Amino acid sequence: MTEADPTHAPLFEHPAFLLGQLGFHTAGRFADLLAPIGIGPRHFGMLRLLRDHDGQSQQQLSEMLGIHRNVMVGLVDDLEKRELVERRKHPTDRRAHAVYLLPAAHEMLARAYEAVDGLEAELLASFDERDIATLLGLLQRLATANGLRRGIHPGLTSERISPPPCG
Amino acid sequence: MTEADPTHAPLFEHPAFLLGQLGFHTAGRFADLLAPIGIGPRHFGMLRLLRDHDGQSQQQLSEMLGIHRNVMVGLVDDLEKRELVERRKHPTDRRAHAVYLLPAAHEMLARAYEAVDGLEAELLASFDERDIATLLGLLQRLATANGLRRGIHPGLTSERISPPPCG
Repeated sequence: MTEADPTHAPLFEHPAFLLGQLGFHTAGRFADLLAPIGIGPRHFGMLRLLRDHDGQSQQQLSEMLGIHRNVMVGLVDDLEKRELVERRKHPTDRRAHAVYLLPAAHEMLARAYEAVDGLEAELLASFDERDIATLLGLLQRLATANGLRRGIHPGLTSERISPPPCG
Repeated sequence: MTEADPTHAPLFEHPAFLLGQLGFHTAGRFADLLAPIGIGPRHFGMLRLLRDHDGQSQQQLSEMLGIHRNVMVGLVDDLEKRELVERRKHPTDRRAHAVYLLPAAHEMLARAYEAVDGLEAELLASFDERDIATLLGLLQRLATANGLRRGIHPGLTSERISPPPCG
């Protein structure tokens, strides 16, 4: 009823629109599920990357991961305030500080992964295994073809520090 | 290399993560493609709905479309300043104002639909017709099962007036 357009296909027929809708919905639900833990999606994304690259300098992390330096420094500051990471002197580069996860961060990550599993179960509740496998394959191809980096959300790497106007 | 986690599947294996990534990317690219026209994705979403419901009061629009009243009033104000819509006295409800599209809005919408087509072509460049049809069907089912309304972006209907932290 809301798409009575004689000249254009309804937005419901556009994969780009549906991806935007579902991406916004998913990000919002993920934020909801993380809220009781006290972190946001960006903290999760950053903690997960820091865990895999424990003890690197911010400069190294920024270059290696392609994460915008301002975004990273802001997030590391925030995580340090929450006592989830600490900056210590870099073992080989005296001028640099390396970022280390504190034990609380590992616990936090385990709880955040439970939120990821919960989100996925909720989102895909109506799909069977075959649907999920087909969807996964198509989304992986689409992400790769559009230059998205494996496991790194563009909200971390983009120069769009504030989210784009998704709505 | 960035997902060396012994206990959890890489995020690249999670449809929810990929939807978040692709949704953020798509919203950002749509904003890029609309920028030369001088509007954002939310203006497009609102103009498109107003065109299909021309001459309704804001109250009617808010109820019928499930669009958060604050979001709608703000967007109509903005569109009015841009001389794309105007508020006139509602023909039957003296206390209400109806919202009407001005001719410039129809021209703007036609240009915005070109941006939609361009976005879709870019996003799906590596897919053949069958891939696109499969993806479309799965995304439509997912959107419906998760309570998303046809052709209405949750950024318009949600009480999340500011976008959630997508990153």
